[in-house]
Amino acid sequence: MFPKLPLLHVWFKSAYFQRLKALTPEENTRSQHGLFFQDGQRRVDYVLTYSVKKSSGSHSTRQSVHLLTENVVARSFRHGPQSGGEKLRAKQTQRTKDSSSEDQKAFRREEFEGKLRDMGLELEKDEDGKIPGVYFVKIHAPWNVLCREAEFMKLKMPTKKVYEVKQSNSIVEKISTLISKILEPLHPHVEEHQPKNIKHLSHTFSREKQHLICMNICIYAFLAGITSLLGSGVYTAAYPLHDVSIQICVIKMIFYLFRKYFGEKIGLYFAWLGLYTQMLIPASLVGVIVFLYGCATVDDNIPSMEICHPRNNITMCPLCDRVCSYWKLSTACGTARASHLFDNPATVFFSIFMALWAAMFMEHWKRRQMRLNYEWDLTGFEDEEDHPRAEYEFKVMQKSLRKRQKSQDKVNTVYAVHENLSSLKLLNFFYCFIIYLFQIEKLTFQDRLPAYMTNIVMMLLMIGVTFAIVFGVILYRISTKAALHMSSSLITRNHVQLTVKTTAAIINLVVILILDEVYGAVARWLTVLEAPKTDKSFEERLIFKTFILKFVNAFSPIIYIAFFRGRLVGRPGSYLYVFDSYRMEECAHGGCLMELCIQLSITMLGKQLIQNNLFEIGIPKLKKLIRYIRSKQGAFQEEERQKKLTRYETDHFLEPFGGLTPEYMEMIIQFGFVTLFVASFPLAPLFALLNNIIEIRLDAKKFVTELRRPVAARAKDIGIWYNILRGVAKVAVIINAFVISFTSDFIPRMVYQYMYSPDGSMHGFVNHTLSYFNVSHFQDGKEPMDPSHFGYPVVICRYKDYREPPWSNTPYELSKEFWAVLAVRLAFVIVFQNVVMLMNDIVDWLIPDIPKDISLQIHKEKILLVELFMKEEQGKSYIIDSSTSADGKENCSKHNNNSKVAPPRSRRHTNSTKSF
Amino acid sequence: MFPKLPLLHVWFKSAYFQRLKALTPEENTRSQHGLFFQDGQRRVDYVLTYSVKKSSGSHSTRQSVHLLTENVVARSFRHGPQSGGEKLRAKQTQRTKDSSSEDQKAFRREEFEGKLRDMGLELEKDEDGKIPGVYFVKIHAPWNVLCREAEFMKLKMPTKKVYEVKQSNSIVEKISTLISKILEPLHPHVEEHQPKNIKHLSHTFSREKQHLICMNICIYAFLAGITSLLGSGVYTAAYPLHDVSIQICVIKMIFYLFRKYFGEKIGLYFAWLGLYTQMLIPASLVGVIVFLYGCATVDDNIPSMEICHPRNNITMCPLCDRVCSYWKLSTACGTARASHLFDNPATVFFSIFMALWAAMFMEHWKRRQMRLNYEWDLTGFEDEEDHPRAEYEFKVMQKSLRKRQKSQDKVNTVYAVHENLSSLKLLNFFYCFIIYLFQIEKLTFQDRLPAYMTNIVMMLLMIGVTFAIVFGVILYRISTKAALHMSSSLITRNHVQLTVKTTAAIINLVVILILDEVYGAVARWLTVLEAPKTDKSFEERLIFKTFILKFVNAFSPIIYIAFFRGRLVGRPGSYLYVFDSYRMEECAHGGCLMELCIQLSITMLGKQLIQNNLFEIGIPKLKKLIRYIRSKQGAFQEEERQKKLTRYETDHFLEPFGGLTPEYMEMIIQFGFVTLFVASFPLAPLFALLNNIIEIRLDAKKFVTELRRPVAARAKDIGIWYNILRGVAKVAVIINAFVISFTSDFIPRMVYQYMYSPDGSMHGFVNHTLSYFNVSHFQDGKEPMDPSHFGYPVVICRYKDYREPPWSNTPYELSKEFWAVLAVRLAFVIVFQNVVMLMNDIVDWLIPDIPKDISLQIHKEKILLVELFMKEEQGKSYIIDSSTSADGKENCSKHNNNSKVAPPRSRRHTNSTKSF
Repeated sequence: MFPKLPLLHVWFKSAYFQRLKALTPEENTRSQHGLFFQDGQRRVDYVLTYSVKKSSGSHSTRQSVHLLTENVVARSFRHGPQSGGEKLRAKQTQRTKDSSSEDQKAFRREEFEGKLRDMGLELEKDEDGKIPGVYFVKIHAPWNVLCREAEFMKLKMPTKKVYEVKQSNSIVEKISTLISKILEPLHPHVEEHQPKNIKHLSHTFSREKQHLICMNICIYAFLAGITSLLGSGVYTAAYPLHDVSIQICVIKMIFYLFRKYFGEKIGLYFAWLGLYTQMLIPASLVGVIVFLYGCATVDDNIPSMEICHPRNNITMCPLCDRVCSYWKLSTACGTARASHLFDNPATVFFSIFMALWAAMFMEHWKRRQMRLNYEWDLTGFEDEEDHPRAEYEFKVMQKSLRKRQKSQDKVNTVYAVHENLSSLKLLNFFYCFIIYLFQIEKLTFQDRLPAYMTNIVMMLLMIGVTFAIVFGVILYRISTKAALHMSSSLITRNHVQLTVKTTAAIINLVVILILDEVYGAVARWLTVLEAPKTDKSFEERLIFKTFILKFVNAFSPIIYIAFFRGRLVGRPGSYLYVFDSYRMEECAHGGCLMELCIQLSITMLGKQLIQNNLFEIGIPKLKKLIRYIRSKQGAFQEEERQKKLTRYETDHFLEPFGGLTPEYMEMIIQFGFVTLFVASFPLAPLFALLNNIIEIRLDAKKFVTELRRPVAARAKDIGIWYNILRGVAKVAVIINAFVISFTSDFIPRMVYQYMYSPDGSMHGFVNHTLSYFNVSHFQDGKEPMDPSHFGYPVVICRYKDYREPPWSNTPYELSKEFWAVLAVRLAFVIVFQNVVMLMNDIVDWLIPDIPKDISLQIHKEKILLVELFMKEEQGKSYIIDSSTSADGKENCSKHNNNSKVAPPRSRRHTNSTKSF
Repeated sequence: MFPKLPLLHVWFKSAYFQRLKALTPEENTRSQHGLFFQDGQRRVDYVLTYSVKKSSGSHSTRQSVHLLTENVVARSFRHGPQSGGEKLRAKQTQRTKDSSSEDQKAFRREEFEGKLRDMGLELEKDEDGKIPGVYFVKIHAPWNVLCREAEFMKLKMPTKKVYEVKQSNSIVEKISTLISKILEPLHPHVEEHQPKNIKHLSHTFSREKQHLICMNICIYAFLAGITSLLGSGVYTAAYPLHDVSIQICVIKMIFYLFRKYFGEKIGLYFAWLGLYTQMLIPASLVGVIVFLYGCATVDDNIPSMEICHPRNNITMCPLCDRVCSYWKLSTACGTARASHLFDNPATVFFSIFMALWAAMFMEHWKRRQMRLNYEWDLTGFEDEEDHPRAEYEFKVMQKSLRKRQKSQDKVNTVYAVHENLSSLKLLNFFYCFIIYLFQIEKLTFQDRLPAYMTNIVMMLLMIGVTFAIVFGVILYRISTKAALHMSSSLITRNHVQLTVKTTAAIINLVVILILDEVYGAVARWLTVLEAPKTDKSFEERLIFKTFILKFVNAFSPIIYIAFFRGRLVGRPGSYLYVFDSYRMEECAHGGCLMELCIQLSITMLGKQLIQNNLFEIGIPKLKKLIRYIRSKQGAFQEEERQKKLTRYETDHFLEPFGGLTPEYMEMIIQFGFVTLFVASFPLAPLFALLNNIIEIRLDAKKFVTELRRPVAARAKDIGIWYNILRGVAKVAVIINAFVISFTSDFIPRMVYQYMYSPDGSMHGFVNHTLSYFNVSHFQDGKEPMDPSHFGYPVVICRYKDYREPPWSNTPYELSKEFWAVLAVRLAFVIVFQNVVMLMNDIVDWLIPDIPKDISLQIHKEKILLVELFMKEEQGKSYIIDSSTSADGKENCSKHNNNSKVAPPRSRRHTNSTKSF
């Protein structure tokens, strides 16, 4: 139902077939080997691995007794101590020796596995693996356990009631549906041949959710168990297995595949990426048209014609002190023409278009999400994973221990008469337990204040570092330019601009790439320091911080060029100097838009090519290689082992799945490039589109071949990313308004045409924007060394600004034109911002959040239920289906035959009888 | 748990006790009379009334047969024809005579009542009522029916599991709770004595929901039944009864009362109004402080000091042509001083404060709503009332009939060989039925296009009318002023300003009041024309249209004064004329802010006093009187009857409840006054607060004494009103930005102080804002008749504008100062808007939508369920409660004894066994 992008479809297919082709039939069976227990019947749903260093194991008995007591206490605190982060672990390792630590681990493994067995899971250990030192625990969840858990997790259970999904418009379709319905029982594998417009009143939970459910059981078995066990090294890895057979089966519906294979969370990411890429197609189309319009009209552009015309040979003031001389405006012809490509009226239209595009994208995503929620039966699903994180619990524990210490003193005075210390201890323990149980103890604002302060300070520091680096690059540019200008070599001087710009842009890019990695680490450290309560909160805070830092990092050089460069220059005779010696840099004639455009394209392309694709694919491959080489140190032949490796062993060499954050982050930053400065770079959507087409492919490949299969996680939405997208889209409106009105020459041109032009045309615009300067007013030592460069002494030179001429009463003051243009610029910003915001609101209002067909279907489902209920209520049980008396287990059977009419009764009945 | 406003509490109490005092004990019993069936046991849950005109009843037999067939057809179309609006009804009345219409009504009543009995309701007819021609059908819903329906409506059912609600902070509280828990079984009426911090895992549905459930059954019995039956006059009224005993019982908790007594929808309105009023307290406090700051600093204000100082005796240009002469600026001293009250730096602070206040209000309301949803157990509730409206169904029917007509022609050609017409008819009918059943037929955009076009045209027309009236009032003001200026009487001329302003403001107010009524009717008509599908959609569209019209009506004169008045004046020597003869009006010196303030206060106070309070209370009283007088035409003594009247008869004389729209609308318009122009009128929140304190009281009184008891409707939120509030708050930011920067003198003062003032003080500001005019440049015939008014000939006069002096190169052109001030004004708008929007977003982000304690409690509920589930799952049934074997009916019994521990099992079990 999903991919309306046939191109992507084809790519995916090819990617998969490629992968499948690589496996000969024999290999295929081999990789299937290891998918089942030794009996060949029970499927491996989940794998835990651990490594054991062989040791003497002398103190084992005493140690295990000690551990037992420790464990009891610990368990009552939900394993606070064991899972309490590195500090405690460090202490533990200090206290106990290596061997005893191994024993302890073995004990905890045994305990955990016992719990799993209690939960009804079946385990098989693989102690004679081919990888030395690595042991596997294969877990199988029997069907009845899955059923129970599925119900518990509120995965919707199937009813046999089938109803139509699509609002069919013709009788023909209806009839065909009817026929297919009638023929249905003839198909053996109903699920695969099921017509698209038939939907069970509620879906059965799919095979793929097994991993999720299995994971869930593990978690419940030991509460926040697995994570902390992995953290403390009791187990080294936990993952479900890749399954080639399913990969083959579901290739036909690529998107379906993703959801089924990886779970809803990753499915949503691909759905989002798909929609984004789809939406980029019209945007890049319009962008290309706008660019082509610029190309086509470049010869009709009067200002650039005037600049290029040799008759208008205006003498300009020097671009640097002393070494530079006066120059003719006609030499700026090239840049003037080039800047027209990005600075023409179509750009204004395009940035309004892109603002609306962003709003449309948000709305469409809301709808798509709603549709997917419906199709994936997530409408009733709520996030429930609020288990406090281990770090948080550890901190709370520390706090309550401190409190206990205080209260102990009090208790001591009260119970001073008693000598029975053990009862006192018991009391203490009881008190602590009560505190924990009622969660009276929690981290207050006061407790968190130091972490918050560190956060704020570090964030500001990091942002400061970014700004400092931007300023450093500016200084580099200014000083290098000055140095190169002074060079005696003519060739060097001629290539000044090119050399400086290129090196500066590359420096910028490299700095951005390095800082991106640093900031990622800093953000994580800061979030750990903050100790958020739940995993969800941790993730959100981490994402937020990372986003802020990376965003500032990526965009601050661009913002400098767009809004500050060329504006803080001063004027001839009173230039602005940095460190008293370097003049601030100016833009080339024709506005800074051109330079903004260059910087944007370099940053965007560089980031995408190097960071996203090279890093993303290269690093997992590298890590896989390293892991492989490391394990190769074992004795026997590599070739030999390769052949004998089972599926779970192969998967063990893959990089663990690290979450979707980097994928989303990359796309959001790209979204920023596409929307924020689109007024200056209409080709950005095209570049983004090209990147994404490769990106989806690489991501898909990475997820199936380079990473361990992730646990299928459920999610209803893309979470905080949606808010960040909204934020970016909002900021984009304001930034685009400012780019158009301040960076581009659009407003000055309009003002000239309608307020000052004698004949209403653009003729004379260039002259109007240039102010006069009397060269005798140069500061001492700043005048050009070669004043008669053109063969005649220059008396008046021109510079780009709106200032009074030397002969006015107030020479070099800002002129009336300056204020008029400024007023119009600001008015444009207000109008643009409010019009676009209003249009966004209208788009928001016009496009309903829930697609009409989905809301109709939901309504229909309800009505069906109501009708069935009404019928049943009146005691007219004319329902001929015999399954009403069947008990829930049948309902849970893998093969669901789509018999025609069955009331939801069986479902609800199942619900109650199964759960109790 | 609600009212944190002790004052309101007291008022309510007094209002109620007043009402109760009026009833002597004997009276009290009398009004209780009629609350039960004749047996005195079964309570009257709902009353239907109908009127019968005695007639011959001759054709009854034939007629009823005819009706029977008609009814069968009609029923298959869900009573489209009968309920199909006025057109069809008109046709029906044309076709059948009065008497047969009575028969038909009687038949439909019988049918409907039969249906009700089928649904399990118990009916009692009261044919010998004391009101001639009015008959009552009393409906009682037995407990088992209520139970069934409650479950069907997903009203949460009770569990016996009790848990703590409040996060208690001390052990003491815990212990006291424990004690009260232990003592609980001793209290006979648990529900009333229940401690506040105990909550059932799910609430029982309350007594008051009986009406809702009863209403629901009625609706299901005949689908969109009751509404259409009421519409076609089969019944004349349908209402539940007021219940004095409950009123007495629950006075202690006023808010609880409202929800219990009127249902969640009205409860939400009062909760909203309560929060709004609460929030107005700080706003009006700050407003008063700002106003007092203005009063305190009026003597330190340099510009007004300069104006008032006799030394600065500036000669101003005349305010009107010919008849007016030059005037001295010092005569404007009074207005200059007065305008400082509303135009000082504190105003800027106040409007930022109010923008944030509005954001806080929205956020708080979201939280309050969430809390109420939780406390009222609405978290799982979804709106389900999507029954298509009768008008919509009628239109769809018409459309399908037209289609049938077309297809009939086709069918005729196909079946031409057959002569069997009846089978053809059957086929036709079947086709129509199929179409209806599958809802293939619906109103497409094309069908609705005429209605949409009418809507747009009419809306634009109405808005045009408003603008025309505003313009008319302007003309009135200009022309009257001119006429009065020409008057020979000195007294008349001296009172020109006062007379004109007062009359104009009154005219404006009267026009607003009249148009408000007209627009309400127009909006309703337009919405009926649009034929929205559902009642909800109808209500939303109606509200939206009414809001737009009333908003434009209320605010267009104010917007004119704020942004246009005094701006379109032209300049001396080249004034702007309306109809070539009337000069556009200027503001008094000191800005238009003063006039804006006057207009605002008159409109706001006038609207509130006259429209809201007088109309709202007066009209129901009047209607009640009329209805009473009309029924008084019966023969016997009024006194006699009064005594014998039962509750349901008394209620019959009350005005039916007309929905909450007018109440909300009034408050939203007030919210507009409070937020939109708050920069010019800091006392608005105070006036609003005073009004609301009276308003809540009057509303409450009206709802209990002047209106029939409304059916308790459920609602999760305040619906479209929230969106409208958000919209108003958004617009308020922009309007306040413009008021501060354009209407007030704040920006010119700042610009003068920091850009032009020689000493950085405000001295010379007045002179700076005044331009020079050479009186010889007056147009012919426009110069003052009395140029030597002051005893000397005036050569140069001054006027308020930033223009070049007569002696510059470009005389009377806009000066550089004008553009500079304009640029700063616009910059201020941008900064203000974005800063406030950012702050709003931060407020939005900082305040979580779900209060922490509520989310904790929801989480706790979940955990409790999970734990119980886990325990049960492990087969350790140590639950000692014997109620597990009890069946659901016991659970539904009125007295729920809060025995300690019981698993949710009983609830879920109940759920399944009861419903099937």
